[in-house]
Amino acid sequence: MPSARRADARRNYDILQLAAREVFDEQGSDAPLEDVARRAGVGNATLYRHFAARHELIVAAYADEAHALCARAATLAADRPPADALFAWLHEFVDHLGPKRDLTLTLLADRRSTLFDRWHQAMLGTTSALLTRAQRAATIRPDLKPAELLLLTAAIALTSTDADRLLDVLRTGTVMPTGVPPAR
Amino acid sequence: MPSARRADARRNYDILQLAAREVFDEQGSDAPLEDVARRAGVGNATLYRHFAARHELIVAAYADEAHALCARAATLAADRPPADALFAWLHEFVDHLGPKRDLTLTLLADRRSTLFDRWHQAMLGTTSALLTRAQRAATIRPDLKPAELLLLTAAIALTSTDADRLLDVLRTGTVMPTGVPPAR
Repeated sequence: MPSARRADARRNYDILQLAAREVFDEQGSDAPLEDVARRAGVGNATLYRHFAARHELIVAAYADEAHALCARAATLAADRPPADALFAWLHEFVDHLGPKRDLTLTLLADRRSTLFDRWHQAMLGTTSALLTRAQRAATIRPDLKPAELLLLTAAIALTSTDADRLLDVLRTGTVMPTGVPPAR
Repeated sequence: MPSARRADARRNYDILQLAAREVFDEQGSDAPLEDVARRAGVGNATLYRHFAARHELIVAAYADEAHALCARAATLAADRPPADALFAWLHEFVDHLGPKRDLTLTLLADRRSTLFDRWHQAMLGTTSALLTRAQRAATIRPDLKPAELLLLTAAIALTSTDADRLLDVLRTGTVMPTGVPPAR
């Protein structure tokens, strides 16, 4: 691709990402994609060339939020006992997923795409680091896998009405009887 | 609709239902819908006129299985303590969902359609009956809702590799500390 066309494509990608964030923040992530294209001042074809599915546009629009969420894990791990850090992070993960229904369903359906995979690997890696730490401290049952915890948490995010209560169910179910009781 | 045309439509519906069951049993419920139409000896347009989405065809094809599953609740409730009956039924619900990925995702996405709603109401009603019984016996935490339990169980069905272990997590998380300990 000649560099002028490449620069143009990059510019469109950036503008779409910003426009999507604005439109999704205003109307929710189910907003018509036509509104995003219009806000960005590009055609629908250009939008779909960059983002083949709605969940890809959601991942791009909230890339900063996802990055900050993963970075929070280190702070939580430094400040709290391992199982507390894990479940505090899962609470924040539910808040991240909350209004992004299409992304949550993509996670549950395990669909593939480069942008989604990047987001998924970041979330899975963060969950894995926190979970492994809690399992080494013998506070969370050792047979639980990071991907299982992410799927169950995604299902909790879908209920949306009372994630705290269901995360409490999940925590009670995964805590080791011999471990430190959850601090509440 | 003249009665000859109505009888014809009914016949196509029944044949498609039987053909879908055969094809899904052989190839899984992700099988090409063209194979179902071909087996039934009807065109693709006829299939889509009767079943607008794959999950509707799955519901129709496995209507007998769903009916038997809901009927099992009474037997389980008669034979076992309430919480045992509930979780034994949820195990069977996972087995029902297991190979029906598209139906599971429809449940999680809470999509609407007449056929799906009929299936969904049956599953929700059964879960509700068993859960209420276990909550009255004070063996399961009283704040848990049938729809939440169904969503979490659907997420467990999606992991597919080890539903028993995750149902155990769910049970440990929902059992009342003062209740009868789970019989295993």
